[in-house]
Amino acid sequence: MGKTEPSDWATDAHLAVRVVAMRRDTNAAGDIFGGWVASQMDLAASTAAEGFAGCKCVTVAINGMVFHHPMAVGDELNVYTRIVKVGRTSITICAESVRRIRRTNIRQKVTSGNFVFVAVGEDGRPQTLDKEWHLADQKAPPEN
Amino acid sequence: MGKTEPSDWATDAHLAVRVVAMRRDTNAAGDIFGGWVASQMDLAASTAAEGFAGCKCVTVAINGMVFHHPMAVGDELNVYTRIVKVGRTSITICAESVRRIRRTNIRQKVTSGNFVFVAVGEDGRPQTLDKEWHLADQKAPPEN
Amino acid sequence: MGKTEPSDWATDAHLAVRVVAMRRDTNAAGDIFGGWVASQMDLAASTAAEGFAGCKCVTVAINGMVFHHPMAVGDELNVYTRIVKVGRTSITICAESVRRIRRTNIRQKVTSGNFVFVAVGEDGRPQTLDKEWHLADQKAPPEN
Amino acid sequence: MGKTEPSDWATDAHLAVRVVAMRRDTNAAGDIFGGWVASQMDLAASTAAEGFAGCKCVTVAINGMVFHHPMAVGDELNVYTRIVKVGRTSITICAESVRRIRRTNIRQKVTSGNFVFVAVGEDGRPQTLDKEWHLADQKAPPEN
Amino acid sequence: MGKTEPSDWATDAHLAVRVVAMRRDTNAAGDIFGGWVASQMDLAASTAAEGFAGCKCVTVAINGMVFHHPMAVGDELNVYTRIVKVGRTSITICAESVRRIRRTNIRQKVTSGNFVFVAVGEDGRPQTLDKEWHLADQKAPPEN
Amino acid sequence: MGKTEPSDWATDAHLAVRVVAMRRDTNAAGDIFGGWVASQMDLAASTAAEGFAGCKCVTVAINGMVFHHPMAVGDELNVYTRIVKVGRTSITICAESVRRIRRTNIRQKVTSGNFVFVAVGEDGRPQTLDKEWHLADQKAPPEN
Repeated sequence: MGKTEPSDWATDAHLAVRVVAMRRDTNAAGDIFGGWVASQMDLAASTAAEGFAGCKCVTVAINGMVFHHPMAVGDELNVYTRIVKVGRTSITICAESVRRIRRTNIRQKVTSGNFVFVAVGEDGRPQTLDKEWHLADQKAPPEN
Repeated sequence: MGKTEPSDWATDAHLAVRVVAMRRDTNAAGDIFGGWVASQMDLAASTAAEGFAGCKCVTVAINGMVFHHPMAVGDELNVYTRIVKVGRTSITICAESVRRIRRTNIRQKVTSGNFVFVAVGEDGRPQTLDKEWHLADQKAPPEN
Repeated sequence: MGKTEPSDWATDAHLAVRVVAMRRDTNAAGDIFGGWVASQMDLAASTAAEGFAGCKCVTVAINGMVFHHPMAVGDELNVYTRIVKVGRTSITICAESVRRIRRTNIRQKVTSGNFVFVAVGEDGRPQTLDKEWHLADQKAPPEN
Repeated sequence: MGKTEPSDWATDAHLAVRVVAMRRDTNAAGDIFGGWVASQMDLAASTAAEGFAGCKCVTVAINGMVFHHPMAVGDELNVYTRIVKVGRTSITICAESVRRIRRTNIRQKVTSGNFVFVAVGEDGRPQTLDKEWHLADQKAPPEN
Repeated sequence: MGKTEPSDWATDAHLAVRVVAMRRDTNAAGDIFGGWVASQMDLAASTAAEGFAGCKCVTVAINGMVFHHPMAVGDELNVYTRIVKVGRTSITICAESVRRIRRTNIRQKVTSGNFVFVAVGEDGRPQTLDKEWHLADQKAPPEN
Repeated sequence: MGKTEPSDWATDAHLAVRVVAMRRDTNAAGDIFGGWVASQMDLAASTAAEGFAGCKCVTVAINGMVFHHPMAVGDELNVYTRIVKVGRTSITICAESVRRIRRTNIRQKVTSGNFVFVAVGEDGRPQTLDKEWHLADQKAPPEN
């Protein structure tokens, strides 16, 4: 299966984004542009945060983002997310992206990092999260 | 969970694409442009075909594509694929797309259809598929 | 003129879209992405349907789409449309796309297929088409 | 038919581009971005110049570009081109763009302007055009 | 520094846009598409006009646009603007674009041209500009 | 001038990117998508790193990225960069982005963060930087 590298982590996280990198996403060097990968992670983490909060969540910080391997055109990018902390109005999502090399089952970790969001209400102000959440309870989501 | 509609089918198919629909993907009416959904399905089916064949596969036909529900900005599009027929040089993929409505767990079938591919070699000519394949053996892929 | 292949059909159909394929529309193999061609056809057929109905039309099905030839960067894509059936609330458009190879007059059929639309009113519900339409009457539209 | 405004000119010019303006092409004010229209005209004129020259043509000047009417999302943009001058290595294309308002047959002139190209060879240097050309001979191209 | 060519002009003009050209902006020949450069100039000039007028400004004409050098992927495009004429409701912006070749300090003039705008009010009609403006007073803006 | 907030920092940093946020860059909530801003910062920091190194630089980490204010369509995004550390093969760029609100001179800090790059040679391996660099020597670049 070739998925040795990211498997432990990925199995109990949520797959938030799965896309194929296209030529329009390349930089001048012909690799997939790092900013495109960062965009996909932000989108994935944001979806996970809004799915938990049930309301609009805005990115307030990105911490410890590391780029492990580059991506090539045609590779599939998978972004896995996991809620790692929930505060009164904030949610921290750990996101990890994994490439599956084009036409193979070889998988490699591409990036990892933490995204912090604040839940905001209709009035645009921080909104208290009334949902309980315990790190120990977290499991992989049942849906595929 | 609200995933009544597409659940039976989706559980033993492969999730090939999961993306969030953005405002740049809308048509003049403000809905997500049907051509964008069709593009994502073609990309998903193509990934599935190339993953099976291990070589370049080109789309030769799309049959029986039906649009069940429209998509809105911010919805997550999931494209599930399943190999339904393998010929000497061709692969038929049944693809089904399911939206998860923004910030909810409500899921609805968006489209379904069959995509036919031909495997082509380095010389651009149809290439015999030397892999065995039996419909009865097909299972959901183990990876998330 | 080199337009032997698609000429018979095209002469009495309506040219709905004429665009040049750009590098950003290529797939990982360097060809024009099939999903981009399908998008252009949907857009063309949708324009033709809305032009007839005079109201919003949504794609409900794509049948018998066949890909005849691939496209290369710089080729001109022409999508011709013809109304083939009008029901109480539905319109079926036969669309055919023809490439003109870059810097030449050589033309080749790229795709063909049928697109079915339903006319919808301001309330989002199917709307009865009050226009008469007879297949035998159909002619090429007079405007260039 | 409502095509009073641009009809005289358009009937004996070549339709080089026909596209539908999408929401992603709007500016901050919600209108179609003027730069998008200028891009489509350059592409149309470039196609016309390369079609005549049979080799690569690079834009060297744009003169007298006038914007007559704005475009809205969903309008069809038609760019008509006509060769107005051929020099030893240069070609001047007069381009006129006409919108067809969404779901109607109302047409309005959007822009007009002259685009000057220089034909260049494989070595990137200006290349002599060996084709004869007479303004008086020019007619509308026979293909639709 | 290699910035001999555009330096005199640029030093007392306003830098309105600085972007890196990406692969998705190339034409079929692999150069940066001229229409993309024209778009960036229109955007830059429009920003300059709206910054002066404090209201919406629409492009009404482009005059004397000249393309001096082509751009390559990865080059930085700089668009400098200068107000050259203010009428009762119109503003003319002279824009010049300069490339900085990728990973170097070599700069070359890419294009130059004049963009004419009309200020429009909330009602979409031309609006009188009540600001005084004298060509002789114009200086480079203090901000970087 | 309203540029109280970011002025101290910006005056002795390098302006690496200045772009206008377009509607196609919005998220489902109608704000400018955070991933787009992160992309522009990566592009700006990458340009600064490659300009110093004179060779290809790949992003290896993003640290302490903070989002201070959201952006709206039509706002101008300015990304300022400053080299803060140079190692044997790595370069750390501090980037700060500042919005200028549409049609005004009001400026607000949007994001700030550190981007770490590794210089790579033609063979794709880390390459020793042979340039001397002292933090104390750094000044704003002379060009506008």
